Amino acid sequence: MKRNVLSALGARTQPPPISWLMQLALSRPRLISLAAGFTDNESLPVREVQKLLERILVSRSKGESALQYGSTQGDPALRRLTADYLHQLDRNPKSSNYAPDRMIISNGSQQMLYLVTEALCDTGDIVLLEDPTYFVYLGILQSRGVEARGIRMERDGLNIEQLESVLQSLKKTGDLRRVKAVYLVSYFQNPTAITTSFRKKQAALELLRRYERAAGHPIFLIEDAAYRELRFRGDDERSALAVRGAGDRVIYAGTYSKPFATGTRVGFGMLPEPLFRAVLSIKGNHDFGTSNLLQQLMTQALQTSQYQDHLRGMRRRYARKAGVMSQILQETFPPDVEWIEPDGGLYFWAKLPKHIRCGTASALFKSALASEVLYVPGELCYADDPTRKKVNHEMRISFGNASEKDIREGVRRLGSVLARAIKAR
Amino acid sequence: MKRNVLSALGARTQPPPISWLMQLALSRPRLISLAAGFTDNESLPVREVQKLLERILVSRSKGESALQYGSTQGDPALRRLTADYLHQLDRNPKSSNYAPDRMIISNGSQQMLYLVTEALCDTGDIVLLEDPTYFVYLGILQSRGVEARGIRMERDGLNIEQLESVLQSLKKTGDLRRVKAVYLVSYFQNPTAITTSFRKKQAALELLRRYERAAGHPIFLIEDAAYRELRFRGDDERSALAVRGAGDRVIYAGTYSKPFATGTRVGFGMLPEPLFRAVLSIKGNHDFGTSNLLQQLMTQALQTSQYQDHLRGMRRRYARKAGVMSQILQETFPPDVEWIEPDGGLYFWAKLPKHIRCGTASALFKSALASEVLYVPGELCYADDPTRKKVNHEMRISFGNASEKDIREGVRRLGSVLARAIKAR
Repeated sequence: MKRNVLSALGARTQPPPISWLMQLALSRPRLISLAAGFTDNESLPVREVQKLLERILVSRSKGESALQYGSTQGDPALRRLTADYLHQLDRNPKSSNYAPDRMIISNGSQQMLYLVTEALCDTGDIVLLEDPTYFVYLGILQSRGVEARGIRMERDGLNIEQLESVLQSLKKTGDLRRVKAVYLVSYFQNPTAITTSFRKKQAALELLRRYERAAGHPIFLIEDAAYRELRFRGDDERSALAVRGAGDRVIYAGTYSKPFATGTRVGFGMLPEPLFRAVLSIKGNHDFGTSNLLQQLMTQALQTSQYQDHLRGMRRRYARKAGVMSQILQETFPPDVEWIEPDGGLYFWAKLPKHIRCGTASALFKSALASEVLYVPGELCYADDPTRKKVNHEMRISFGNASEKDIREGVRRLGSVLARAIKAR
Repeated sequence: MKRNVLSALGARTQPPPISWLMQLALSRPRLISLAAGFTDNESLPVREVQKLLERILVSRSKGESALQYGSTQGDPALRRLTADYLHQLDRNPKSSNYAPDRMIISNGSQQMLYLVTEALCDTGDIVLLEDPTYFVYLGILQSRGVEARGIRMERDGLNIEQLESVLQSLKKTGDLRRVKAVYLVSYFQNPTAITTSFRKKQAALELLRRYERAAGHPIFLIEDAAYRELRFRGDDERSALAVRGAGDRVIYAGTYSKPFATGTRVGFGMLPEPLFRAVLSIKGNHDFGTSNLLQQLMTQALQTSQYQDHLRGMRRRYARKAGVMSQILQETFPPDVEWIEPDGGLYFWAKLPKHIRCGTASALFKSALASEVLYVPGELCYADDPTRKKVNHEMRISFGNASEKDIREGVRRLGSVLARAIKAR
């Protein structure tokens, strides 16, 4: 009888692999976790949030408005401030893609990804994505019965030639009609820390447009910009919203959760029609709108420039922590391990020699645990793509939440484990 | 090409009818809206929330914890306090149904309803529900391609005989295997203000159990208790969780949003396995957890008894507003209009003479608008049930958000419109 209890979606949905890792960390108090994507505790704007909330709640009328339902779409002032801010980040192109009435406020960008996927994809559809990519998005696709196809990454984003060859082969097999979107984590990607160049966003959009006729419907670019503002080196890349003539194909998902405070859950999406209308209706069914109090908090943070001030401090802090991790990696990791120096985000992505497996079932993962250090095995970030083999010699290590001391000690422990594993071969 | 853009779910999902009504209200500044399900502005705990948030944010460590991610399931202290509170409301039965580890915190009870429906129902499944019922839940079912079948209401809840005859006829046609749940808004129901007696919850659960063998799977009772604490007269009824031996069939969805502050969105669900695990995983994909800051706020409110104090004041206020509405209804509504005096909640449900239609397309609805007063047409609260005709002579009028002055004036206007309509026949 048990077999039939759940819906197909309910039966398919798996707990995200990270929750298993987090439980592991909680059950071992001496463990140093370089696994979690949590942000830095000391960078959290406790004092600022206190003051901002006081500004709202000290006024009876502002307070009442913040504690009452808002609209499903989200607070108009917050949408205007956010749209203006995005427009400015993208260097003010002449474009209607930054209109506040195209924006919907969500519970973090995570909910926006869920809503967009609900509105766009049926079971059996295909989403193309980076190989590797954000594992929770892989979980969303898997739970909804949507297939994921991985596209190789280069130093500046997707390998466009490979994107084309995948589209071409899907066209040949008649499967292009199942392709609904390309999903990119375009800034300091989780897990690789790679940022997609504006040129590649343009190229991807052009390519998708060429295959739409054969697909029989639009193919959207979902740009997940969750880490955009966590840049601590170099200049911002423009988003896909700034690609001329592509506004009706770009879905931009952003958030205030990662750059400001993960305990408040305020994200947003810029959406073209007819997706905008569908996502708004589905959001109405989910929760008829994100907490008005949290939205007012972000409105105040933007209006008073507390948000911008906070970003400056946070960037200095992450730059320093990334520097600490970089230095200790150089000191303690064996010379045949490679990694990319991130310009932002929360992660280093390390590639071991190909024969050294480091997945959850590997001897290396167990040795690391025995040495009381935890990382995210890279294999978790690869799609179950029948056409590609999962890579199993990469790891994500985060400098986000760990203290500088723990970063040093954790990387040192991991370095010893790696040295032993490489020597043993 | 447009036809294929959205998923089946995306294409099916409609904006909730209430959003059309709310836009109408916003566009007509002189309109008195007795339509919205908003709570009373003056009852919102602005000062209390300010103090509670200060208690959290004045401490660096508490503040950091509130501004950081929590777990997907929700804050353990909040779950313990909430589970204890429910247990106490249900008069402390010996039961494992109130264990905090069966509870998941959600963004209002609305999200819990969405998650449960995702975990339980496939397209083509059937949910039995009250006739009339909460229209946003009807929207969830419609968007997911789930059929709704209405069961007549009596003064103390579902007509159990009719529930049985519907189950029997579904069994005969071989459709019982499609029935996944019965959905009840069991306290001061939206829209009728009817409270389901404990006896009827028992009877419904017994009946469902008898039909499970023929269904081939469990049939759950979803108890939506969103209005439970908005009682201002009489004693609380026990929830279905207190029905002995039924813990594995009851899903209880509650909220702090309606009774405390709708602008904070903290709700919860008590769930039996295997639903608990499925809903937790789906919640992880939605947003990996409700805002920790809002959860800490509710934890503080419960720990300091501010919540309980607030309930007392709010109940006095709603009792008074309901009294004002009752009196003016008696004074101004024609004698052949009937309504139930609510013991709680936010609504009066008025039944006009059968030949007076009051749906959105009716002359009466237009006359009411011309007289600058808005109500919710009852027809919106009926399922698209092929086996039953929609009732079209009922209306929901709310005393929640309108001031006492507006309640008096709004009902007076509506009374005149009704008197003219009845006289014209």
